[in-house]
Amino acid sequence: MKKFDDLGFCKVDTDREDRTGYPEVIYGEGKTSDHISQIMDRLISHHQKVMITRLSKEKAVTLLEAFPQAKYDETSRILLYGEPTRQYAGEVMVMCAGTSDLFVAEEAALTAEWMGCKVKRVYDVGVAGIDRLLAHREEITKASVLIVVAGMEGALPSVVGGMVKRPVIAVPTSVGYGAHLEGLTPLLSMLTSCASGMSVVNIDNGFGAAYQAALILQLVSEEVSNEKPIS
Amino acid sequence: MKKFDDLGFCKVDTDREDRTGYPEVIYGEGKTSDHISQIMDRLISHHQKVMITRLSKEKAVTLLEAFPQAKYDETSRILLYGEPTRQYAGEVMVMCAGTSDLFVAEEAALTAEWMGCKVKRVYDVGVAGIDRLLAHREEITKASVLIVVAGMEGALPSVVGGMVKRPVIAVPTSVGYGAHLEGLTPLLSMLTSCASGMSVVNIDNGFGAAYQAALILQLVSEEVSNEKPIS
Amino acid sequence: MKKFDDLGFCKVDTDREDRTGYPEVIYGEGKTSDHISQIMDRLISHHQKVMITRLSKEKAVTLLEAFPQAKYDETSRILLYGEPTRQYAGEVMVMCAGTSDLFVAEEAALTAEWMGCKVKRVYDVGVAGIDRLLAHREEITKASVLIVVAGMEGALPSVVGGMVKRPVIAVPTSVGYGAHLEGLTPLLSMLTSCASGMSVVNIDNGFGAAYQAALILQLVSEEVSNEKPIS
Amino acid sequence: MKKFDDLGFCKVDTDREDRTGYPEVIYGEGKTSDHISQIMDRLISHHQKVMITRLSKEKAVTLLEAFPQAKYDETSRILLYGEPTRQYAGEVMVMCAGTSDLFVAEEAALTAEWMGCKVKRVYDVGVAGIDRLLAHREEITKASVLIVVAGMEGALPSVVGGMVKRPVIAVPTSVGYGAHLEGLTPLLSMLTSCASGMSVVNIDNGFGAAYQAALILQLVSEEVSNEKPIS
Amino acid sequence: MKKFDDLGFCKVDTDREDRTGYPEVIYGEGKTSDHISQIMDRLISHHQKVMITRLSKEKAVTLLEAFPQAKYDETSRILLYGEPTRQYAGEVMVMCAGTSDLFVAEEAALTAEWMGCKVKRVYDVGVAGIDRLLAHREEITKASVLIVVAGMEGALPSVVGGMVKRPVIAVPTSVGYGAHLEGLTPLLSMLTSCASGMSVVNIDNGFGAAYQAALILQLVSEEVSNEKPIS
Amino acid sequence: MKKFDDLGFCKVDTDREDRTGYPEVIYGEGKTSDHISQIMDRLISHHQKVMITRLSKEKAVTLLEAFPQAKYDETSRILLYGEPTRQYAGEVMVMCAGTSDLFVAEEAALTAEWMGCKVKRVYDVGVAGIDRLLAHREEITKASVLIVVAGMEGALPSVVGGMVKRPVIAVPTSVGYGAHLEGLTPLLSMLTSCASGMSVVNIDNGFGAAYQAALILQLVSEEVSNEKPIS
Amino acid sequence: MKKFDDLGFCKVDTDREDRTGYPEVIYGEGKTSDHISQIMDRLISHHQKVMITRLSKEKAVTLLEAFPQAKYDETSRILLYGEPTRQYAGEVMVMCAGTSDLFVAEEAALTAEWMGCKVKRVYDVGVAGIDRLLAHREEITKASVLIVVAGMEGALPSVVGGMVKRPVIAVPTSVGYGAHLEGLTPLLSMLTSCASGMSVVNIDNGFGAAYQAALILQLVSEEVSNEKPIS
Amino acid sequence: MKKFDDLGFCKVDTDREDRTGYPEVIYGEGKTSDHISQIMDRLISHHQKVMITRLSKEKAVTLLEAFPQAKYDETSRILLYGEPTRQYAGEVMVMCAGTSDLFVAEEAALTAEWMGCKVKRVYDVGVAGIDRLLAHREEITKASVLIVVAGMEGALPSVVGGMVKRPVIAVPTSVGYGAHLEGLTPLLSMLTSCASGMSVVNIDNGFGAAYQAALILQLVSEEVSNEKPIS
Repeated sequence: MKKFDDLGFCKVDTDREDRTGYPEVIYGEGKTSDHISQIMDRLISHHQKVMITRLSKEKAVTLLEAFPQAKYDETSRILLYGEPTRQYAGEVMVMCAGTSDLFVAEEAALTAEWMGCKVKRVYDVGVAGIDRLLAHREEITKASVLIVVAGMEGALPSVVGGMVKRPVIAVPTSVGYGAHLEGLTPLLSMLTSCASGMSVVNIDNGFGAAYQAALILQLVSEEVSNEKPIS
Repeated sequence: MKKFDDLGFCKVDTDREDRTGYPEVIYGEGKTSDHISQIMDRLISHHQKVMITRLSKEKAVTLLEAFPQAKYDETSRILLYGEPTRQYAGEVMVMCAGTSDLFVAEEAALTAEWMGCKVKRVYDVGVAGIDRLLAHREEITKASVLIVVAGMEGALPSVVGGMVKRPVIAVPTSVGYGAHLEGLTPLLSMLTSCASGMSVVNIDNGFGAAYQAALILQLVSEEVSNEKPIS
Repeated sequence: MKKFDDLGFCKVDTDREDRTGYPEVIYGEGKTSDHISQIMDRLISHHQKVMITRLSKEKAVTLLEAFPQAKYDETSRILLYGEPTRQYAGEVMVMCAGTSDLFVAEEAALTAEWMGCKVKRVYDVGVAGIDRLLAHREEITKASVLIVVAGMEGALPSVVGGMVKRPVIAVPTSVGYGAHLEGLTPLLSMLTSCASGMSVVNIDNGFGAAYQAALILQLVSEEVSNEKPIS
Repeated sequence: MKKFDDLGFCKVDTDREDRTGYPEVIYGEGKTSDHISQIMDRLISHHQKVMITRLSKEKAVTLLEAFPQAKYDETSRILLYGEPTRQYAGEVMVMCAGTSDLFVAEEAALTAEWMGCKVKRVYDVGVAGIDRLLAHREEITKASVLIVVAGMEGALPSVVGGMVKRPVIAVPTSVGYGAHLEGLTPLLSMLTSCASGMSVVNIDNGFGAAYQAALILQLVSEEVSNEKPIS
Repeated sequence: MKKFDDLGFCKVDTDREDRTGYPEVIYGEGKTSDHISQIMDRLISHHQKVMITRLSKEKAVTLLEAFPQAKYDETSRILLYGEPTRQYAGEVMVMCAGTSDLFVAEEAALTAEWMGCKVKRVYDVGVAGIDRLLAHREEITKASVLIVVAGMEGALPSVVGGMVKRPVIAVPTSVGYGAHLEGLTPLLSMLTSCASGMSVVNIDNGFGAAYQAALILQLVSEEVSNEKPIS
Repeated sequence: MKKFDDLGFCKVDTDREDRTGYPEVIYGEGKTSDHISQIMDRLISHHQKVMITRLSKEKAVTLLEAFPQAKYDETSRILLYGEPTRQYAGEVMVMCAGTSDLFVAEEAALTAEWMGCKVKRVYDVGVAGIDRLLAHREEITKASVLIVVAGMEGALPSVVGGMVKRPVIAVPTSVGYGAHLEGLTPLLSMLTSCASGMSVVNIDNGFGAAYQAALILQLVSEEVSNEKPIS
Repeated sequence: MKKFDDLGFCKVDTDREDRTGYPEVIYGEGKTSDHISQIMDRLISHHQKVMITRLSKEKAVTLLEAFPQAKYDETSRILLYGEPTRQYAGEVMVMCAGTSDLFVAEEAALTAEWMGCKVKRVYDVGVAGIDRLLAHREEITKASVLIVVAGMEGALPSVVGGMVKRPVIAVPTSVGYGAHLEGLTPLLSMLTSCASGMSVVNIDNGFGAAYQAALILQLVSEEVSNEKPIS
Repeated sequence: MKKFDDLGFCKVDTDREDRTGYPEVIYGEGKTSDHISQIMDRLISHHQKVMITRLSKEKAVTLLEAFPQAKYDETSRILLYGEPTRQYAGEVMVMCAGTSDLFVAEEAALTAEWMGCKVKRVYDVGVAGIDRLLAHREEITKASVLIVVAGMEGALPSVVGGMVKRPVIAVPTSVGYGAHLEGLTPLLSMLTSCASGMSVVNIDNGFGAAYQAALILQLVSEEVSNEKPIS
């Protein structure tokens, strides 16, 4: 049985939901509206829903005419068609250090919601005003998975990582200047964090962080529903 | 209540188990045997067990005299004292691309076991002989969390990431030469992977990958034992 | 005998066909339409054909007015005048990992065809959906030379390289973001590939890869026509 | 009047104390014991005291034979001859994130003491156990100048910088591995800190940080003794 | 007592003046005029004054309509509302190497003035015409703190650092081309300066340098007014 | 049918000869003599021959005791057991720029011979003495494939590439200092060559270049023996 | 006597001609037309001539209205006012590898002429068509100083350097893509050249190369006119 | 007529003296004593003299046994056989910033002397003590060519370049730590110098700088002896 639809210019991976738990998500950058539209058609016919990331407002406007039921969020640049069909136990906390990291934090938050996670947002809690972070300490320790977004020196995930017993996924952002090297500095900084239990995704990749967070909650939900006793 | 023991040269974080689920682990590199010995004493008196990573054989020999119940593994350079006291549901799969990545893979495997995980090892399945990997396909899809270790171009996690619905933690290794840049190349390569659901830790950081894997299984186990219904 | 035409601003290398098997190809970037037009005149008078790469649509429009027999391809940004005069035995396979790598793959494919090669295209077979690649396995092993184009982490050539007994020429693309470093990451990654028999060209250099592929088939064709017995 | 002694292989800057407030300090690395010995002679005859940094134990042993009144500190690798002749108002706090940063922290602490500063040490207060740092919060806000030493991701200075109204001088260390890039990562990270009022010196340059801290306290002391009213 | 105002999209750190001596400064880049306007409202109601850095002329025009008492400086791209309420003893000297570094030098100068410092400007004294610098030698040695701004090879702070007994804060600028690497070259160069007593801030960060300079003069002023005898 | 022998620590890819035309080659670096010895046993029993690259003299001495028929070459650090069983039509030319590049050139030459190619060596023909190169011009144009090894600025392949109509495989070496960046400079330089028809392998990877050269001659030989007419 | 005119925003170095042989040259980038105009006024009143480099066409148009006797060259982006007043013995050869390097070559050529040198241009002689270069061999060996401009892999200066007994000044250009790194690759490549007697200036710095070439011919001319016998 | 001696492992370029004015110089690093000895034999028989650079003391001892008339200098690691046969008019000044740069400065000084130049040494005049440099101002302006060696931030050549009307050749050294990047920082810094008339050679390449300086004086001498009038 063929596991993908061949559109010539691309092979739509219709088998991905069976294989990885989620249908293919369209990366909007570098694709024409027309190509996106064709891929959307296939994905909708297979899965009744579709998510597009990194979609410029211009393309969104065009696509919304063809798919009027879709919704577009300008901050995260995400377009959604259809509704999430799952709801996992637990909660993903999305934190960010500064207001200029919002576009990445929202990409993470919307993606996680779309994939079936409850999301709690704690924004603008950068380490230079540590009391803002400490004010959320109790909340933070209750989250199941934490996505921590930071530009500049990327220190927030290290501090959070030392406060919790849950997995932390760090997302560096391209927000900064000079020695910030368009996000390379917080990326490298997060990778060398002194906090254990933390992993890192690409610069500005809120989507990827949320995807992994959702896989973790999916695992939890499936194990819980299996009611497997602890061995 | 004081949350750390102050040894002058260091503050032993005795509160960490309450806070993050695990006692402090000693990073052996750059510490003298004498310092390590003092920290071990404190940790053992608090937690009855201790793990040391990146410990040279020379220091290990000295420490084994003082702590004869401890065990030292030469491949991973880990010293363990005491026994794991938990066993989580689910299974961590540790994969590596080549035999020269073994030292990192074993650091991950021993750490995960120490933290309470069942571990399955699938070694030497680099992508240049894809059939070796495909021969394990069924096994791979059954793992709860996958730690994928690779040097050279670091392509293995991308291929594995596309095969499973579980979180993949990628570990680049410093094994390679020339354009490999002591591990920077596979590190960057893994961060830009086309597979979703994957996150990355520092070069050679098998410990960090295993730590996050264990936090994931800890979350699963705690949620399962809470018998919380899916909301 | 003079081996080049001196136009003042440049020396047209009219001897190149004798020396290397192919007339000079015009690199369109950074040249004015007027300069290109003058060089085309010389090359056409010497070789009755000409190829221009990296030609913007704007310049192409201008040149098509002066050379109405020419054809311009928007995806690859190649302009062709005249027809290929050779056809080599064997087949060049051009593969690419994602749809956003198409512009490089097509530069390679059109160049190879122009130079006298039969070309087979296998597109959008990135390693995160390995089954799409495996579906083409038989075909892949039949190609004489393989040009494998990939952005992101650049893993595709390694997997392909392990499947075939023919030379693989890897082409990294500038498609990606953050840790992708505008193509440096897949470039370095391909250079450290664990697959033997693979070499690499510059980022986005589909032309260069195809050029080498054509030289290989040219060698084959000339040796075959020489009917030299194997020593 | 000549402002330096010419030893042939070097020009001893005997005027420096008048010009900058402190005699020349000898950088021990890359100089032979014999050369150092000659320079010491000149500096002692001019200033009755001398400080040498980055001095290996081997050279120190040789020099201590020739200058038995000198003292050598193994951790900081500093050799001192004579006594500080000043004592400034205020207090320099030297903080470090981990025990492996001690060698840099002690270079800073001894230098500051030598230059006439009272020094308070707060060690092993890395951000991954934020409570260790917060336990010192009151003390921290009382310091006049803060030197904050950190390896790994270099996050400590940002957190400290947000807590105090005094200048923070950040010192990255070469302690780390992989993406740490021998200290480049915390260096860049500190330079892009979200905390204001912070500046940075070279990797492992505890001496330089302490030197600037002492200049600040020197300024304070001179202004105080001038009893200049605030304009 | 809550230490920040939560505006949803950001948490205004109203406690910062108590904690660090100065109210929060708004970093204008990457914020909308509307967001800035809301934050200004809060800061003005708390502190009766506000400073915005890196503000484009376009946004400034919009904000000046809403806050007609504010003043905007095009060179430094700083908008000020209200008046400085302090005046410290001592003097900050702002020096720059070339006329193209003016925008950074003025950011430093205006910031220092806003924070309560007397500022002396010495501009266009790059080391390739050392006599221009030497002509200011006496003046230079009288400054309390020196901010030295330089693009190109960033050599000016080293020369100045060797002339004075006061702290030097070096600011590399992004002005240059080729091997200048958008300011990375002078940044690294300043960090490896052979002059002691010098520290460095991020590329183009005139604000940060001035902030630290003001903290130094604040310390001086507070110590002087305490009339503490030298211990 | 199983396609590899599982030795626990590694999976010997016994199917590789069928798949890619050549048995697995052992990369000697980072493997113990004991491990190599076990892998040799397996490969010899399958293929009656084996090649090991990057083998230190120390390990070679140990292995020669166990495998007295093997031969070790100190310059290239290659150990060979058994004899090549093929001989291809055509000729591989191995060129190098300087005498210090010999170790890479010989790795290429011995590999190519082992794989069945006739090899012609043209050494020490760096471009700073262009007449040495021009003296070989006729010879150069007769080669079927050219492997061009160069350290320093890596200019030789560009000059050679412009002289021939055959594929050129460029190999940068780690021989140089300072701005040479351990081979990165000639690597990057070769990738941006102005000569068409050239591809590049990793720094010091003489083996990889020869492997690809042999695949090219293998293709030629198989096509010639098929006596396929040119289509 | 004051050695510079202070215009407030800049100090015009009117002494430079006495000190270095040439009046100050205006670097046009990053200066407003108005500022340039003021500096021109001063320089013209002192020296009766002025040269401006890196001047955009837009600013040139404005300045030509104010200084109608001036001349602007679009390729090199140089504006000249007045006439060269010297003519040195000997000849500067300006060579470039490709037509896209012309803008740098012309900056060098016009600068050298302005400074009093005879200039010979040999353009488009890149090493991939070595015969074009060899056709000029005799001419090349007759030049007094050679400025060799090259983008791509920057190999031309190495070949030229090996042909001549005169100083070669290499100029890398920013012309290229991908691994070319905006000129860093040829810059590094030229610095590691195997040819002796070669030095390098910044990327695209045709002006700097010509300036040094003119200083060399100035030295020659002054020594010749001194008629000093060879000691 | 053959222009080189083929020793098998290398081609001795015996024609170089005719072509470039100087016999080949042996680069000692990476060559065995035996190979060097053979090349020396050839060069001595052709030119009666030879220079070897970068020669370790160990190899020097061996070679001095075979060539007892040779002399070895430990600081510069140069071995000389025979005597310079020329003496040029003018003077090369070799300057260095610190005593740890001596090994490079002496490589330059001995090379220049060997090639026929009078050399004046001005050492340890780094910019952090500008008076040491200014004390030599008159001398500096009298030199014909200046070689300026500096590690750390590499600022010395910029200051010197602004003082003289003669060509300055800057040599960065590998002396420094941290952000110094083994010499890359001063290399880049020198390339972006604000002083005109300066060019740069590779890190630690005292030989290359001296070689170019000698070519300049050779040009002067030949032009002077031609008694060509200034045109």
